[in-house]
Amino acid sequence: MNVTVRGRTRHYRTVTFDARRNRVNLIEQRLLPHEFRVVCTHNYAETARAISDMIVRGAPAIAATAAYGLAQGALAFHGDNLTRFRHHVDRVFQTLHDARPTAVDPVNAMKQIRARMESGQSVADQQALAVRAAEAFADEDVKHCQAIGRHGTKLIRNGMRILTHCNAGWLATVDVGTATAPMYAAQARGRKFHVFCDETRPRCQGASLTAWELAQQGVSHQVIADNAAGWLMQQGEIDMVIVGSDRTLGRTGEVANKIGTYTKAVLARRHNVPFYVAIPLSTIDWNLLCGANIPIEERDEEEVLGAWGRPAKGKRTYIRVANPGSHGRNPAFDVTPAALVTGIITPVGIFTPKEMWKHRRKLGYEGP
Amino acid sequence: MNVTVRGRTRHYRTVTFDARRNRVNLIEQRLLPHEFRVVCTHNYAETARAISDMIVRGAPAIAATAAYGLAQGALAFHGDNLTRFRHHVDRVFQTLHDARPTAVDPVNAMKQIRARMESGQSVADQQALAVRAAEAFADEDVKHCQAIGRHGTKLIRNGMRILTHCNAGWLATVDVGTATAPMYAAQARGRKFHVFCDETRPRCQGASLTAWELAQQGVSHQVIADNAAGWLMQQGEIDMVIVGSDRTLGRTGEVANKIGTYTKAVLARRHNVPFYVAIPLSTIDWNLLCGANIPIEERDEEEVLGAWGRPAKGKRTYIRVANPGSHGRNPAFDVTPAALVTGIITPVGIFTPKEMWKHRRKLGYEGP
Repeated sequence: MNVTVRGRTRHYRTVTFDARRNRVNLIEQRLLPHEFRVVCTHNYAETARAISDMIVRGAPAIAATAAYGLAQGALAFHGDNLTRFRHHVDRVFQTLHDARPTAVDPVNAMKQIRARMESGQSVADQQALAVRAAEAFADEDVKHCQAIGRHGTKLIRNGMRILTHCNAGWLATVDVGTATAPMYAAQARGRKFHVFCDETRPRCQGASLTAWELAQQGVSHQVIADNAAGWLMQQGEIDMVIVGSDRTLGRTGEVANKIGTYTKAVLARRHNVPFYVAIPLSTIDWNLLCGANIPIEERDEEEVLGAWGRPAKGKRTYIRVANPGSHGRNPAFDVTPAALVTGIITPVGIFTPKEMWKHRRKLGYEGP
Repeated sequence: MNVTVRGRTRHYRTVTFDARRNRVNLIEQRLLPHEFRVVCTHNYAETARAISDMIVRGAPAIAATAAYGLAQGALAFHGDNLTRFRHHVDRVFQTLHDARPTAVDPVNAMKQIRARMESGQSVADQQALAVRAAEAFADEDVKHCQAIGRHGTKLIRNGMRILTHCNAGWLATVDVGTATAPMYAAQARGRKFHVFCDETRPRCQGASLTAWELAQQGVSHQVIADNAAGWLMQQGEIDMVIVGSDRTLGRTGEVANKIGTYTKAVLARRHNVPFYVAIPLSTIDWNLLCGANIPIEERDEEEVLGAWGRPAKGKRTYIRVANPGSHGRNPAFDVTPAALVTGIITPVGIFTPKEMWKHRRKLGYEGP
C-alpha cells in the first residue's frame, strides 16, 4: 500500500525480492509506527533471523518472506552438482523453518516453491524456477487479499463505523491485508466510513500498526481502549466488526484470533452488530474438529505488565506499568464460537461458518 | 491497610489529619505503584490542590480529604469574631469544592461538617466541632467499608478466582475499600482465593493500584489485559466478578463505573459468572430515572494513545504507543444495565438491583 515519507508517496509491499542483488527487502515493522524503514537481508540466514526477530510478522507475510528466503538461498549456490544443490536447499529450508517453528504457512509456502523447482533439469534451471515460484507466491497472496477486498467491500456502506481488532492489515500480508482489504476496496470506490481501532493490549498492534496503516491510506479512524468497544456499541456508534484470524476451523467455523476478539464478538452479538472475519484460504484448518483443541500460546508476562512506546525525547522504550512486585497472565489468542460469527470473508466469497464445510472444495480442502 | 516499606509493616489510611500541627497527611497516589510516600498539606489551599492534582483520588477518599480540609481551614482562623469566621469557612468550602467541581461526595461531606459546627457557640467551639466531625466522617467511611466487607465476604469461598476491574480498593476510600473489602474480610477469615486484576486501560489503575494493594496485603493475584477476561471465563477460570461503582441509580439499579465494566458484565452473564458491585451508600443516586442520562466524561485522548510507567532506568514517564498521527476516543465510564448485575453489596446488606428501591429507607433515601 502507499506510504508517505517526507512528503513523497510511494507504493510498498511488506516484502519484496531483488533477484539481481539476491536481497530480500522488508519493512522493519519493529520501528513502526514511529519510524518507517525498509531493511534488506543479504542471505537466507539473515532472512531467517528477520523472521525470528519479528522484523516481519503476520502469517501471510512470513510465508512470502520464507518463500523468498528459499529462492535467495537457492540462488546463492555455486556449482552445477544437482545432488549437492538439493542438500543445500534442504539446509535453507530447515533454517527458515526453524525461524518460526510453530507457524504452518511458511512451511507450506516453501514446499510449494520446492515442488515447482523439481521440473528444472539443472541447478540454474531450478534456481530460476525458485525465483519465479517465490514471486508467483507473493503475487498470489496479493491477489487473494484483493479478492477478499472485492467480496468484503459489498458490506461497507457509506457512513459506516467499523470496529477492527489487532492488525490484520497489509503489514501482516504482502499487500492489501485481510481485515483491511474490504476497507481499502471501499475507499477506492469512493465510500466514506470511519474505523475504530482497538488498541489491542498487550502488544497494541491496533494502536501502532493498524492506525499507522489507515493513516497512511488516509482512512478516517480513531484508536480506542479495548474497554471502550462495549460503550460505543451501547451508543449505537459501531455498525460492523471486521477482524482477521490466525486459524479458522473449516469443519466448525470457530475462529482463533488475537486475545480480545471473542469479547468483541460477544458484545457485537448483544448489540446486533454484524461480526465478520476476513481470512486467506491458507489459514483454514481442515483437521481440527473442535476449537477447544486449538493450542493457546501464553506469552511472557512482561507484555501485560508494561508497554512499548516512545517517550517525548529518546528511543522506543519499555516501561513498567504494573506494580513491580506483581505477576501477570498473558494468553495471546482466544477462540470465537461459530454462532457469534456473521460471515467469513474469503478470496472466493463470503460464507457463514456453517457453509464452510459445504463449500470446502472451493475453499481449498484437499482431503477425502 | 498494611504497607510494608523497607521490611517494616505499618497500618496506613489513605488520608489522616494531624490536628495539633494542622496538617492533612495523604498517600501520594501518583507515585504508586513504584514509590510509596506520604505527603502532608499545610493549609486548606494545599489540600484543595492535592485533590485537583490527583494526589488523592476515589470519591470516598476525596470526600474525607475535603472534610479534613474544611477542618484544617477552620482551625487556621485566628480571632473570635463568629461572623468573620463563617465568611472564612465559606471561602474554605468554596476552594475545596472548586478542586473537583463535578464530584458530589466532597460537597456532601463538607455540608455535614458545617452542620455539626452550627451547634458551637464560639469560634473555638466550632473549630473543635469541625475537627471532631471530620474525624467522625472518616471513621464512618471506614466502618461502611468494613460493613461492605462483612456482607460481601459471605460470597467468597475457599479456592475462588475473582475478577476485579479498575481500583475500588482502600486507596479510593479512607481504608479497606469497596470492591476489595469482601476480599480483605475473607483473607482475615483465613480463606484462600485468587484475584485477577484487569489492567484497566487507559489509566491502568488495576495494574498499578489494585495490584499494589493486593500485593501489600499478601493476596494472591495476577494482572491481565482487559482483553483476557473473556478467555479466562471461557476456560472456567473465573468464579465471580466484584467491581466498584462511581454512581449507582437507586431507582433502576444501573451501575456507572470505569470504562470496560459493562463489557465484563456482558461476559459474566454469558458464562453464568456472578457479577457483584460493591458500593458505599454515598454513591447511590436517587434522582436519575435512567442510566442513559448519566453524563459520561470523555477524557484526553493522550490517555489512550500512550501509557504511564517507569522505564528500567529513570523516572515515571509517558510513552506514546499509538501511531503519532492518529487520534483517539476516550470515554472514561460506562453504564451496566441492572439485568446484568447479580447483586449490590452495600454496608447494610446485599440487594438485587430491583430490591434497592424497595429498601430505599435502609439505603439512605431521604426523599418523599
